[in-house]
Amino acid sequence: MHVLITGAAGMLGRKLTKRLVDVGALRARPIGRIDLVDIVEGPIEGAICTAHVADLCEPGVATELLKPMPEVIFHLAGVVSGEAEANFDKGMIVNIDGARALFDALRFAEGTPRVVFTSSIAVFGAPFPDPIPDDFHLTPLTSYGTQKMVAEALLADYSRRGFFDGIGIRLPTISVRPGPPNAAVSGFFSGIIREPLAGTPAVLPVSREVRHSHASPRTAIEYMLHAGELDSAALGARRNLTMPGVSVTVGEQIEALTRVAGPDAEALIAESPDPTIAQIVSGWPERFDTRRALDLGFVPDQSYDDIIRAYIEDDFASR
Amino acid sequence: MHVLITGAAGMLGRKLTKRLVDVGALRARPIGRIDLVDIVEGPIEGAICTAHVADLCEPGVATELLKPMPEVIFHLAGVVSGEAEANFDKGMIVNIDGARALFDALRFAEGTPRVVFTSSIAVFGAPFPDPIPDDFHLTPLTSYGTQKMVAEALLADYSRRGFFDGIGIRLPTISVRPGPPNAAVSGFFSGIIREPLAGTPAVLPVSREVRHSHASPRTAIEYMLHAGELDSAALGARRNLTMPGVSVTVGEQIEALTRVAGPDAEALIAESPDPTIAQIVSGWPERFDTRRALDLGFVPDQSYDDIIRAYIEDDFASR
Repeated sequence: MHVLITGAAGMLGRKLTKRLVDVGALRARPIGRIDLVDIVEGPIEGAICTAHVADLCEPGVATELLKPMPEVIFHLAGVVSGEAEANFDKGMIVNIDGARALFDALRFAEGTPRVVFTSSIAVFGAPFPDPIPDDFHLTPLTSYGTQKMVAEALLADYSRRGFFDGIGIRLPTISVRPGPPNAAVSGFFSGIIREPLAGTPAVLPVSREVRHSHASPRTAIEYMLHAGELDSAALGARRNLTMPGVSVTVGEQIEALTRVAGPDAEALIAESPDPTIAQIVSGWPERFDTRRALDLGFVPDQSYDDIIRAYIEDDFASR
Repeated sequence: MHVLITGAAGMLGRKLTKRLVDVGALRARPIGRIDLVDIVEGPIEGAICTAHVADLCEPGVATELLKPMPEVIFHLAGVVSGEAEANFDKGMIVNIDGARALFDALRFAEGTPRVVFTSSIAVFGAPFPDPIPDDFHLTPLTSYGTQKMVAEALLADYSRRGFFDGIGIRLPTISVRPGPPNAAVSGFFSGIIREPLAGTPAVLPVSREVRHSHASPRTAIEYMLHAGELDSAALGARRNLTMPGVSVTVGEQIEALTRVAGPDAEALIAESPDPTIAQIVSGWPERFDTRRALDLGFVPDQSYDDIIRAYIEDDFASR
């Protein structure tokens, strides 16, 4: 089994690599090779890994990465929401043209590998029904969400044409994210848990009533692996799936923090309302009915308490 | 008022031009100039029209067309469904890259004109609820539908960012199309009316039970004009609208033909089932609940009889 991961040096890319190395198999076959590509150098997790510092948007790069053709490709490379909003050109180039460069290279190469594309619930934009059903239309309110929507549409059509065998998974907000905040507007959802656990202050820029949908990094990785394994015949032509999440309010996140970490943690969260962030977040989805993904065997976190415990086990202890 | 029409030499482009010249005003202001652009030369309908033979996909073309900036742009240029399916590259280049070239040129030019983009109900793909609501997701089953979906997504985001003021209108199948058949798979929906009216034979490749949604060219042009006039504040962020159509079965089309043209017309329709066409058509939408468009003042044809009569008045008499 030969695997290629784009965006491999990012948080999820590293965790996916580590998990694949630890499990050692995909689709019931031993993994013999993992190619890691990113625009920056990342850590190498094992002898089966080869890192490539390369930009998918540059001519010929995608074609080279498919020699020889991997059997499963995880396309994680992308610019996050805050950056895509601040730098329109960069978002368009990386999130749309980068995906298209990979998809076109696959079109002209031999073989039809599975391509797992990490999309986002940012493809949805308010107003919403509650919960949002699987057949609700995509009306993103950010350039990031628009770019993910476009890549999803291309993935579905390229798959229909048999150029590759794609599955797009719309990840909920990933929390608790380890490490320093990234450029995502959603960063505070992780910050209000991560910083108090470390004994440092956190800023909460929105009201405690804000409801949002979360998945732990651990579960997001399991979603990717499951999407890599899944029989795509079960998907039919609808190749893009909303992943289940734990839907909680910020207040409920903080209650879970208190249960897991004790009563002192909450005092480290300073409420400092930011109207710009509040405005953006008000356009985000709160709760989904992800029947298709659940029927297809994607298994969510069971509670926000579990999400915090996963962070402590996977990231906090090893800091 | 300065208007630009892309795809101006096509059937709808010509009718739109003629209608604008006849009405002489848009947004309650006299039209002083109409620029017509297409890759082939089209007829000039009046002294206010200037024709440009140019390809939007070529570097710099869109930028030149915006000097000076038009106040309303009708972006009709595109490759039709059959051609986009047969020639994947051409569809991607014309329908996606061409739209993006125009949108990017608008982004870097002064002013925020209204852009009316003609999308299609091909953005939808089976299975469907009946009727299909305005918030149903887009899961196109053709490359044409995918390309229209991508252009819609970009139009909405570019409008949100204030690069221009866009409205996408998803046209039902246009019937009765005048003139010779084009490369659209849907061509027979017009052929079974147009050919018998002219006393020549027509081929029906699908069953009479097939239901589909239609608009006359006359009504499609009125939709474009209304989209050009509409206050976009009423749309909010959801810039793409499904246009109302007359939902009838092929059998009901033929009954309407008999009512309008007499009992002899039907005998000219030869049923010759084509499994490939039947398969494609089975993935197409049948009936929509287009509440948003109706609330926004788009006025559909009242019956398929009216659609046939519009063809006779507008096209048959003047052949």
